[in-house]
Amino acid sequence: MTVRAAAKSASTPREEEILAAAARIFREKGYHGTSVRDIAESVGLLKGSLYHYIRSKEELLARLFEGALEDTIRELETISSRDARPSDRLRDMVSAYVRAVTDNIDAVSLYLREWRALPAPQLTRVRARRRAMRALFEDVIADGVRAHEFAAADAKIAALAILGMCNWLYEWYRPRGRLDAEALATTIADQALRSVKR
Amino acid sequence: MTVRAAAKSASTPREEEILAAAARIFREKGYHGTSVRDIAESVGLLKGSLYHYIRSKEELLARLFEGALEDTIRELETISSRDARPSDRLRDMVSAYVRAVTDNIDAVSLYLREWRALPAPQLTRVRARRRAMRALFEDVIADGVRAHEFAAADAKIAALAILGMCNWLYEWYRPRGRLDAEALATTIADQALRSVKR
Repeated sequence: MTVRAAAKSASTPREEEILAAAARIFREKGYHGTSVRDIAESVGLLKGSLYHYIRSKEELLARLFEGALEDTIRELETISSRDARPSDRLRDMVSAYVRAVTDNIDAVSLYLREWRALPAPQLTRVRARRRAMRALFEDVIADGVRAHEFAAADAKIAALAILGMCNWLYEWYRPRGRLDAEALATTIADQALRSVKR
Repeated sequence: MTVRAAAKSASTPREEEILAAAARIFREKGYHGTSVRDIAESVGLLKGSLYHYIRSKEELLARLFEGALEDTIRELETISSRDARPSDRLRDMVSAYVRAVTDNIDAVSLYLREWRALPAPQLTRVRARRRAMRALFEDVIADGVRAHEFAAADAKIAALAILGMCNWLYEWYRPRGRLDAEALATTIADQALRSVKR
C-alpha cells in the first residue's frame, strides 16, 4: 500500500497521516500483527483518541483498500480511454493491474480473504467499484472484438478469466520471488492478450 | 460434491455413508448452515456416536475436498498421459478442471476461503496434492513449448495463470447463471489454450 494510495481515501490531513501510518505498519508487521495501539502510538495519539478518527482496524483496511482500488481504477480509465488499438490498451491495462496487485499485495490478499467480514456499507461500495473496474476490461475486449483483433465469444467471461489470472496472484505471488514484479506484469499481460487474440 | 467423490476418501462403508450424507446436506443447507447433529440424524446416529467416526465438521470438509481433489487429479493424469498433442491435452485438462470446480463449487469455494483454518496435517497433505496437480499443467505446457505449439516463456507462470482463470470461478460462478457449466468449461478451455499458443 503506497502512501499516495492511502492519502486518496482520507478527508483531512490528520486522517491522511493516520492512513499512511496504518499502511506502513500493516506492511511492516502484517495486518493481524498490528494493533490499533501501534497505529495510535506512531502518530502520537492515545488509542482512545484514535477512535475519534477511525472506528476499527477493519475500517482502516477497507479505506486503504478503497484508496488503492481508486488509484487503480483511475489508471485503468486513463489507459482505456487512450486513442490506441484495443490490443495495446488491454495489454497495458493488464500490466497496470498486475502491478497494482503486486504493489499492494498485503492489502489485496487480506481483502480477498476477508471481504465477507467488512461492514455492509463499505462492502457495497467496494463491490460496486470492483464491478466498474471489471466493466473497463469488458469494454476494451468488446472493442477488440468489433475491431476484429479479438476472438472472445463472450466479453464478460473473457474479462473475468483475465481478472482471475491476475487476482489469483494473491494466492501465489511472493514479493521476493524468482520473477520481479515488472517481469511478472509483462509475462501475464502477454498471456492475457494472447488469450483473447484472434 | 458427488457421492462418488465423497466415497473416495472413506475407508469403511459406515464412513462412506457419513461422507456421502455430509456432502448431500452441505449442498442442501450450506456448510455453515449444517450442524454435526444434522449429519448424525441423517445416518441414524446420535451426535455423540458420530464423533466415533469423525472429529469435526472441518474434518468432514477436508475429507470431502480431498475426495474431489483426488478424483480431479486422477482425471487430469489420465488426460495428460494420453498420446495426443499438447494442445489437445491442455484443452481437455482445463475443461475437466473447470467442470470439477463447477461441479463441486460449494466445497471448492469453502476450501479456498477457509483452508487456512484446516488442521495442519490435512492442510499439508492437500497443499502437496494441489502442487502435484499444478505440475500436471506445467508439464503439458512445457511439452507444448518443446513441440513448438506453445509460446509460454515460463511454464510455471503460465500454469498458475491458467489455474487462476479457473479457480477464480469460486468468486463469480453461479450454478444457475447465464452459461451452463459445460459451455463455460468450453469457453474457458478455449481461452486458456489460446493464452499459451504460438
